[in-house]
Amino acid sequence: MKVINSADEMQKTAESIRLQGKRIGFVPTMGYLHEGHLSLMRIARKQCDTLVCSIFVNPTQFGPDEDLDRYPRDFDRDERFCREENVDIVFYPSAKEMYPSGFSTYVLVENLGRKLCGISRPTHFRGVTTIVAKLFNLVKPHVAVFGQKDAQQFLILKRMVRDLNFDVDLMMGPIIREKDGLAMSSRNRYLTGRQREQATVLYKSLCTAEEMIAGGEKKAETILEKVKTVITSAPDARIDYVELVDPGNLEPLTVIGDSYLIAVAVYFDKTRLIDNILKTD
Amino acid sequence: MKVINSADEMQKTAESIRLQGKRIGFVPTMGYLHEGHLSLMRIARKQCDTLVCSIFVNPTQFGPDEDLDRYPRDFDRDERFCREENVDIVFYPSAKEMYPSGFSTYVLVENLGRKLCGISRPTHFRGVTTIVAKLFNLVKPHVAVFGQKDAQQFLILKRMVRDLNFDVDLMMGPIIREKDGLAMSSRNRYLTGRQREQATVLYKSLCTAEEMIAGGEKKAETILEKVKTVITSAPDARIDYVELVDPGNLEPLTVIGDSYLIAVAVYFDKTRLIDNILKTD
Repeated sequence: MKVINSADEMQKTAESIRLQGKRIGFVPTMGYLHEGHLSLMRIARKQCDTLVCSIFVNPTQFGPDEDLDRYPRDFDRDERFCREENVDIVFYPSAKEMYPSGFSTYVLVENLGRKLCGISRPTHFRGVTTIVAKLFNLVKPHVAVFGQKDAQQFLILKRMVRDLNFDVDLMMGPIIREKDGLAMSSRNRYLTGRQREQATVLYKSLCTAEEMIAGGEKKAETILEKVKTVITSAPDARIDYVELVDPGNLEPLTVIGDSYLIAVAVYFDKTRLIDNILKTD
Repeated sequence: MKVINSADEMQKTAESIRLQGKRIGFVPTMGYLHEGHLSLMRIARKQCDTLVCSIFVNPTQFGPDEDLDRYPRDFDRDERFCREENVDIVFYPSAKEMYPSGFSTYVLVENLGRKLCGISRPTHFRGVTTIVAKLFNLVKPHVAVFGQKDAQQFLILKRMVRDLNFDVDLMMGPIIREKDGLAMSSRNRYLTGRQREQATVLYKSLCTAEEMIAGGEKKAETILEKVKTVITSAPDARIDYVELVDPGNLEPLTVIGDSYLIAVAVYFDKTRLIDNILKTD
């Protein structure tokens, strides 16, 4: 396994791999890897000859009052995990390498980026689309795999890839959960013991929604009320949003149809957790 | 020579050319080709095995009150010129092919795009960077050639390529002029006979600036005053801007240094012409 820090070396390496007719699979991450990331690597591994994983805590996707500084980092641990998953290349650049002096170019997906998480995190998705565009140009993947936990991110990246004609297939890996249902996230480590116990309400609320839908409930309002009730049964949970939307445009649905996204974002003190159910045609 | 209308076919063709180890040269144009464009094709031709020229009047770089509808178009004539220049592939997509329903992703270079032409044309450079990013992803060029007449465009694209890590070398071809010095432009055909005669003041004003600088003048204010006097000697000329700036950040210079851009934009009725002198280290 090769670790590359230089953007230029990453790009030259990727180009030479492509020239050999090999397929490049790519899993971009912010590191502090968990089973969720590893599951994406296993999906990508099956689609490619050369598996590249990037580890980069991207400053432009954090707001000024967010957790950029305290976001967990442990490169030695991440490197070990990558080796175990047979990753071929770990791309691990510095912030200065990715954002040189005078950096001023951004990729922006309008509308989709302003909804759901985009309301409390107004510059977040601009940071995501910008870094992913950069990484696609450096890693030159044939296929890139992202997790369903960040469903809005996936839908926005899918739009970016279509609109800007990136020659990359995007795949989505399912949400990987702890035994009690909490979606795996590097941010779970911020939780106190008490918060950790209560954090299962996100998944429980989504299971309740699924049961209601399976039982024939179609009214979004009724489903959303119940989801909110389950979440607020946890005394320390503070809802950021609970929404039931069309995955195509992220506009609210009033009635459940063939495809829908039920997305929740909940604060426990300053820690913000997200989870969702996504159904597409 | 092959004419391709489909974005998908263009991308697949480009990928197969790259896989053969061939170098792709690219000249993006809005068609209605003149000697300026042809000079860029000749530069690109020397740098590549396969020369691609795109012809696309890009709607997103026109403002709502600009000349999108009356912009000159003549594909048969353009095709003939391309054939004479030994272009290998003409990419000639429709607006619908490039901007499908729901299109909502833009590439934006902040700061540089808000100066000079960006003041009277606030969404122009966003349209340029977006279409060029798309074309780079479809045509997959090793080298792309742009004209110096659009010097600000070149400097902005250079920044975009660096910031987003596009694996493309940008080259700039010199301004090609009519016998009387007027910079060639598809928009020159809008000029009436009387305007066409007066339009030589743009080049004359820049020659005057060059003479002053050659004679030792260093003060921007003195040079700019003289440039304005020459331009306004044409009774129908209306100055949009006359500026002397640092080509790195497009900020005004007070004193001439080792590198500078003197850029002028002048209206004759609704027709807007630009010209410049660019000196870099």
